[in-house]
Amino acid sequence: MILTVTLNTALDLTYRVPALTPHASHRVTQVIERPGGKGLNVARVLGALGHETVVTGFAGGPTGEMLRAHLAGGRVRDELVPIAGPTRRTVAIVDTASGDTTQLNEPGPTITATEWSVLTGRYAQLLTGASAVALCGSLPPGIHVGAYAELVRLARGAGVPVLLDTSGEPLRRGIAARPDLVKPNADELAALTGSREPHRATRDARRRGAHAVVSSLGPDGMLAATGDGLWRAAPPAAVKGNPTGAGDSAVAGLLSGLVDGLDWPERLARAVALSAATVLSPVAGEFDRGAYEEILPRVTVTEQAAAA
Amino acid sequence: MILTVTLNTALDLTYRVPALTPHASHRVTQVIERPGGKGLNVARVLGALGHETVVTGFAGGPTGEMLRAHLAGGRVRDELVPIAGPTRRTVAIVDTASGDTTQLNEPGPTITATEWSVLTGRYAQLLTGASAVALCGSLPPGIHVGAYAELVRLARGAGVPVLLDTSGEPLRRGIAARPDLVKPNADELAALTGSREPHRATRDARRRGAHAVVSSLGPDGMLAATGDGLWRAAPPAAVKGNPTGAGDSAVAGLLSGLVDGLDWPERLARAVALSAATVLSPVAGEFDRGAYEEILPRVTVTEQAAAA
Repeated sequence: MILTVTLNTALDLTYRVPALTPHASHRVTQVIERPGGKGLNVARVLGALGHETVVTGFAGGPTGEMLRAHLAGGRVRDELVPIAGPTRRTVAIVDTASGDTTQLNEPGPTITATEWSVLTGRYAQLLTGASAVALCGSLPPGIHVGAYAELVRLARGAGVPVLLDTSGEPLRRGIAARPDLVKPNADELAALTGSREPHRATRDARRRGAHAVVSSLGPDGMLAATGDGLWRAAPPAAVKGNPTGAGDSAVAGLLSGLVDGLDWPERLARAVALSAATVLSPVAGEFDRGAYEEILPRVTVTEQAAAA
Repeated sequence: MILTVTLNTALDLTYRVPALTPHASHRVTQVIERPGGKGLNVARVLGALGHETVVTGFAGGPTGEMLRAHLAGGRVRDELVPIAGPTRRTVAIVDTASGDTTQLNEPGPTITATEWSVLTGRYAQLLTGASAVALCGSLPPGIHVGAYAELVRLARGAGVPVLLDTSGEPLRRGIAARPDLVKPNADELAALTGSREPHRATRDARRRGAHAVVSSLGPDGMLAATGDGLWRAAPPAAVKGNPTGAGDSAVAGLLSGLVDGLDWPERLARAVALSAATVLSPVAGEFDRGAYEEILPRVTVTEQAAAA
């Protein structure tokens, strides 16, 4: 079983409008409602790939109930911890003509010390049956900044490979707890290391404690610094579409490859192909299975000189 | 008891952001959630004025439950009819700096013939205890365009004064059923009569069947064509602020004045003062009671020459 943790879950709303015009009134032509937050997105992709997947994190209030009702119909097991505060909503406004997206994120509910303790207990219990765990997304208010470091240490103690996908100070603290893998994008990497040069920044991030670092290069693929070497993986061609969820699909590909026992080049190919197939999907955050199978064998993975 | 009917209720979300930028990501700094739809707004103002108020209309799904949970804490009695489809949401994005608002309205759920029959039955029953009724807002999908005409006739048959506040073809059909009062704004009036000259258009609307027409002149006040004469009511000064809900507060003022037995100039003064006090309120759709009491005696109502 693969476990994903989403401390700041959300009820994601996608609104399609002809074109968003500030200070005007718009009729929404299509509404899509679904469970959100990075770890839930990762879990959905893992489920679609056929992995037994469990999600934990927090859910509360009527929006939390709506989120759980959506999960009840899917392939992912719901082990979310109930909280008093209401789960936040996010609204993605997609212009029908251009596909451009305007994003609005509600603040998350404040988590109490008791709720956090219940979560860590549930997490420790779930780790006993997990072959890998992903810790994903931002921290809601009320949770201490070293929370991911604490969860990384629990996973390491339980012998479960742990991937951390977050940003800012929670990433900085989390890396120091020596996760097996972090997956920063260019902005997260620059904030962490102070460098926008991908090779240098990726290797620097690894020196901060992560056993492996896989950096997203956006449409150009990914760069991986691991104990086995340095690789660059690139899709056959840059794809055009909606990048929403592409990073989460990459995380799912890396975890999936890990539990399937693939070597690094194969894991990276899976991550890059899933990411590209997500950009190509007409539904934001879903991946196009045909595109995935078509792109996978055409991803190029090249070993990089260690001093490059 | 005053009854308001809202066929297209909504869960209204107000999001405050520093400034809305298309195709960017925004953290929402404040979320306000409350029952929405014109008739619910009118009822909230009536309740705040001390009137016993009942709302009917439709509510369904988790969003409908959230709407009803909000009503449960207020001064308005909930007689909404449950439906299978989920109540729509609306999102008002308010720029903190300028106060400008961008509006997104989800489509309403489709109402079945059975649900419509249950509503008309509930409405007929509620009319027996009502001193006035307001029919407010747009029609959700599935409801025939003559629906308001049907509800107007039921109210007339029960001897209950009926105010109709809608637009387009439902307004055109509804007026022909001879409601006691319609309250169009400039755009609704122009669509109905083809004229943007307020005096001409207001008198024309009255000839189409309404016993009285009160037209909104926006910040300049209101114009009323009634069986007793033609009046213009103006606030002491144009007010600046958020006009959201100002029209609904005017409807509440007209109904409140009607059941309190006020004459036309006093009713209009109440409507204009409530409308201005709503524009001045820091919370969209609420009215500022201090401003209302201060403005009320300073509204000027002047009788207009019938041939003006």
